[in-house]
Amino acid sequence: MNISLLPSLLGAFGMVAAFVVYLLVMKYPDGEDKVKKIGDQIHTGALTFMKTEYKILLAFVVVLVVLAYQFLGTETAIAVIVGAACSSLAGFIGMYAATKANVRTATAAQKDGAPAALSVAFYGGSIMGLCVASLGLIGLGGLYYFYAANGGSHIHALEGFGMGASVVALFSRVGGGIFTKSADVGADLVGKIEAGIPEDDPRNPGVIADNVGDNVGDVAGMGSDIFESYCGSMIASIAIAYTMNSESLMFLPLALAAVGLIASIVGIVIVKLQSSKEPASALRSGTLLAPLIFIGMAYFVIQDMNDVPVAVLWCVVSGAVGGVLIGLITEYYTGGNPVKEIAESGETGPATVMISGLSVGMQSVVIPILILATIILVSTSIASGAGVAGVYGVGIAAVGMLSTVGITMAIDAYGPVADNAGGIAEMAGMGKEVRDITDSLDELGNTTAAIGKGFAIGAAALAALAIISAYSAQVSSVYGEAFSLSLNNPMVLVGMFIGICIPFLISAITMKAVGDAAFEMINEIRRQFKEIPGLMDGTADPDSEKCVEIATKASLKKMMLPGIIAVAMPAVVGFGLGAIALGGMLAGGLLGCVALALFMANAGGAWDNAKKYVEKGNLGGKGSETHAAVVVGDTVGDPFKDTSGPAMNILINVMAMVSLVISGLLPLNGIFF
Amino acid sequence: MNISLLPSLLGAFGMVAAFVVYLLVMKYPDGEDKVKKIGDQIHTGALTFMKTEYKILLAFVVVLVVLAYQFLGTETAIAVIVGAACSSLAGFIGMYAATKANVRTATAAQKDGAPAALSVAFYGGSIMGLCVASLGLIGLGGLYYFYAANGGSHIHALEGFGMGASVVALFSRVGGGIFTKSADVGADLVGKIEAGIPEDDPRNPGVIADNVGDNVGDVAGMGSDIFESYCGSMIASIAIAYTMNSESLMFLPLALAAVGLIASIVGIVIVKLQSSKEPASALRSGTLLAPLIFIGMAYFVIQDMNDVPVAVLWCVVSGAVGGVLIGLITEYYTGGNPVKEIAESGETGPATVMISGLSVGMQSVVIPILILATIILVSTSIASGAGVAGVYGVGIAAVGMLSTVGITMAIDAYGPVADNAGGIAEMAGMGKEVRDITDSLDELGNTTAAIGKGFAIGAAALAALAIISAYSAQVSSVYGEAFSLSLNNPMVLVGMFIGICIPFLISAITMKAVGDAAFEMINEIRRQFKEIPGLMDGTADPDSEKCVEIATKASLKKMMLPGIIAVAMPAVVGFGLGAIALGGMLAGGLLGCVALALFMANAGGAWDNAKKYVEKGNLGGKGSETHAAVVVGDTVGDPFKDTSGPAMNILINVMAMVSLVISGLLPLNGIFF
Repeated sequence: MNISLLPSLLGAFGMVAAFVVYLLVMKYPDGEDKVKKIGDQIHTGALTFMKTEYKILLAFVVVLVVLAYQFLGTETAIAVIVGAACSSLAGFIGMYAATKANVRTATAAQKDGAPAALSVAFYGGSIMGLCVASLGLIGLGGLYYFYAANGGSHIHALEGFGMGASVVALFSRVGGGIFTKSADVGADLVGKIEAGIPEDDPRNPGVIADNVGDNVGDVAGMGSDIFESYCGSMIASIAIAYTMNSESLMFLPLALAAVGLIASIVGIVIVKLQSSKEPASALRSGTLLAPLIFIGMAYFVIQDMNDVPVAVLWCVVSGAVGGVLIGLITEYYTGGNPVKEIAESGETGPATVMISGLSVGMQSVVIPILILATIILVSTSIASGAGVAGVYGVGIAAVGMLSTVGITMAIDAYGPVADNAGGIAEMAGMGKEVRDITDSLDELGNTTAAIGKGFAIGAAALAALAIISAYSAQVSSVYGEAFSLSLNNPMVLVGMFIGICIPFLISAITMKAVGDAAFEMINEIRRQFKEIPGLMDGTADPDSEKCVEIATKASLKKMMLPGIIAVAMPAVVGFGLGAIALGGMLAGGLLGCVALALFMANAGGAWDNAKKYVEKGNLGGKGSETHAAVVVGDTVGDPFKDTSGPAMNILINVMAMVSLVISGLLPLNGIFF
Repeated sequence: MNISLLPSLLGAFGMVAAFVVYLLVMKYPDGEDKVKKIGDQIHTGALTFMKTEYKILLAFVVVLVVLAYQFLGTETAIAVIVGAACSSLAGFIGMYAATKANVRTATAAQKDGAPAALSVAFYGGSIMGLCVASLGLIGLGGLYYFYAANGGSHIHALEGFGMGASVVALFSRVGGGIFTKSADVGADLVGKIEAGIPEDDPRNPGVIADNVGDNVGDVAGMGSDIFESYCGSMIASIAIAYTMNSESLMFLPLALAAVGLIASIVGIVIVKLQSSKEPASALRSGTLLAPLIFIGMAYFVIQDMNDVPVAVLWCVVSGAVGGVLIGLITEYYTGGNPVKEIAESGETGPATVMISGLSVGMQSVVIPILILATIILVSTSIASGAGVAGVYGVGIAAVGMLSTVGITMAIDAYGPVADNAGGIAEMAGMGKEVRDITDSLDELGNTTAAIGKGFAIGAAALAALAIISAYSAQVSSVYGEAFSLSLNNPMVLVGMFIGICIPFLISAITMKAVGDAAFEMINEIRRQFKEIPGLMDGTADPDSEKCVEIATKASLKKMMLPGIIAVAMPAVVGFGLGAIALGGMLAGGLLGCVALALFMANAGGAWDNAKKYVEKGNLGGKGSETHAAVVVGDTVGDPFKDTSGPAMNILINVMAMVSLVISGLLPLNGIFF
């Protein structure tokens, strides 16, 4: 058998594993009438959103495919389709499974207690994790087999896969992010503050939309996001290896990802086996053991391959270890002492909560970026020392960080499933005991989600850097020495200034989008409380579907502008100012995206947990003035951490991938100059 | 007479003009007993702070001088002393005059009405503006005459002047920024919210400190800030011209600044002549006419000089016009529609005020940075087209933007003088009519201050870019082709990642410093209200000096860490990772500093004016819930716009200037690698 077929086959095996886990989830009962009904509402709402979103996406992808076909050939056009399809499928299946697991987690908590509930929630997340890794291997591995392996000559077509995947990711992340936070902010502001009913109260018309949002934003959106970094890092490494004329180096990223999938499956089993004891340590040992197993397997893979220097293993190690470290730093800033300080600053009101949270967010940028710089330094010098292009080392470090994406994503997606289960338990009135179990699972999920977010940012940054390097290598192969990205070149500087603006602009647009969409949501919820008789007494049902519809429409409308800016900017700058300015733009964009992503994600996470800290009874607990102050922080943190922040990861990857795809068509200096 | 002596002589003339204006201010009466006493308290408090600050600064400068003497020779050491002395003197005289003008403005408002009050306040600001421009010309012009003119061979010693000036600026800006906002936030939180007394009420022990803060932060700090950009842009242009071996091009920046001073004096006279009619249009016509006059004079200067291509005038124009445009954009974001939107979002509480304000701040980054990019593109292509190094064009554009600093700074410093006059009127109980006049002057001052801030950021960015280019040119002259700042070089990337962290770190530290210092202030004010009998009835005086002392101590203690980081980072990276990584760091730092400076300054300005908009009676007016919400925004905006934001301008200039000074000593690749 041809060895280059192996990644796809392992991917197929991973999909089977995902299906097995799905069957395990479905073995659990979906609960009694009321519980089942709520679960169905969330499931249907999520599907409705996804269907509408994918229709819009389809139109967008068709345009891309036509353009790709016209300017880059049939192979690239096909790759765009495959990339978009795999990314959509990963998001869709993962979200489908998550909306089956949430209601079963709640029921398991009621019937069988905490360990069973943890199992179901974690299974739910695992399906997402396995799908992301497996579909990436199937899609990219398959294209590699047909286009690149054994002297195939359509290597650049693989970049189309990346573009298809990243565009889908962008819209899913931004659309999902606006959906989830407009529903969340809207439901909270009217429900908790105006109507004076608790969170997730079934009388609140916006609560179903809020729970739908967790799935479309935190599950499907996050899945497409990681999928895109995962494939992007592989594509970039392959493209760089191609300029070195080494088929072994080209195949290495796929081989690493394939054994990473195996390590992830082992990790998932480890978590499952330990989950009956201590949930927190179970998840943590899965997170830490899977990369170790992966590194061990990577050693044998690298040693086994001809022409691959064994030293390259250290690039893999630097990425895998760096990813874990960034995750732990994120955990500190969103869970450690800084959170307590923010909560304490609530004693002097919301203004000081804001100041301290913004300060924590800004501070949290430093160490993760220094870790990234260290990974770059280490991986490039190892690679050059081993006689391989330095940037290939960065690509492999990114692959190393992302190879165990199966388990990382599983643990990450577990969070929203547990969160949803809590919401369902509250809405269905399943009692305090059930709610306590789901609360503890949810709290754990918040920590793992924070780690996952830090990891996602680090991985996206490295993947983007690798793609930018591949862009630079490809343009160089056309223009040779004339293509110089020296900081002394004013075109590079101009590009960098343009680049640093884009993340600020997209953040501003997405923040405002959440505010506007939440405003529509607030008006609808207010209307229902006013116009539906018996709603407050609980004798009449709210029109939850209407709220889902509003969030869907608003979010899909508002995702267009940032999406188009992200996709169009590389073409505008690339053709308008030239390939040199575009190189500068990508560098400036990378710096801005990474810094803002960390700033917003960590400030948001810290505010969220400061609120939870007070709600546990500290500093006066719920209902105190300190609580009111930290709630303000949490509300501001919502779009920070779940809309604008995550959009940054994809923004830079979309821009880099589009640049890579069009790199062969660009003028050195643009038409405007 | 030697022509290269002219700039210094014109500088001396400017100082005489400043003295004449000072005498004009002193002709006005300083008011009755109570008014005089309050004025004296502010004046003494400000002097006390400055003296203590300058003692600390002296120690720091001594260390720098010794290091400069040891490694770079006597000339550089002398230049460091001159630079630090000129910068300190400019700040000191300006602030001294401002604290004489404030009380006279209040008295003039009472006795002679609005036009007289405007005159005094504007005179007060003008002294600062004239001192900045004149001392820059005297100090730098003098050093140029001795070290560089007529074939002098100590051109690099001029860089010591820049380092001395920028280090003083850094500490003044950061120390002053922490002082002013800790006093402001502390006085407001206890006075307005807890004790329920109005702003600037004489019973509030923190009010004198608050008014002192306006002078040490917004006058002295801003003065040193602009002084440093002003001299930095000239030094960088001279250094770049030196690599081109053209004495005419070396002298051009000083010649431009000299005629800029004349244009500024003309502008000041224009404002004075028009001020009896419409204050707003008087200030505006001064702002717009002075650059026009300057451009006209610059044309004759350039035409008159041998070896200077006339096309270079367009570099001057691009800078001068760009500066005005950035100012106008700033005015829009901090005064136009966005402010109304923020105020309206206050109707749904403080969280939405925060979200909309952050969104406005982020959006406001885009156009000014694109203007900067355009200036770079235009000025470099004009310069290269005229046969001069492209980066020299950027330097001259920066000089063009900053040459009319005399009037820009005058209009900017007018704001805090008017603000202080309002505070004095309130504290002394001078009545509603007087307060109305000072309020209208203050409001106008807020707009001009916003424009001044935008201008300061743009100028600082261009100056820093010119200094970085000079750094690059000097290292190149040592290492030749081996010194390449290509984005493909991992060392450049690592440097850029380090560079983008620094502005976030310094912002985080300074924000937290304000929070901590305000906390100390709050405790002291609370103590006084509790322990001083009769304070609330007005029968006993508060211990204002104690509050000034606390703000002084806290701010000087807290300015050390950010100051040391800023000065040390170039040396650490330069010697540790090498000159290439340091080049990357400066580029990354530049992007981060410019973006964060705009983001924070404009978000803060917009929040401030949203509060004022509501206080004018809109959306429920004072005391409404909307008002409470926008007050939160204003409080968060305080450290944003007056501490952390302005620190960014100087941060990048200090780092660039230190790098330029040590450029001759650096290894290509550092000792760690």
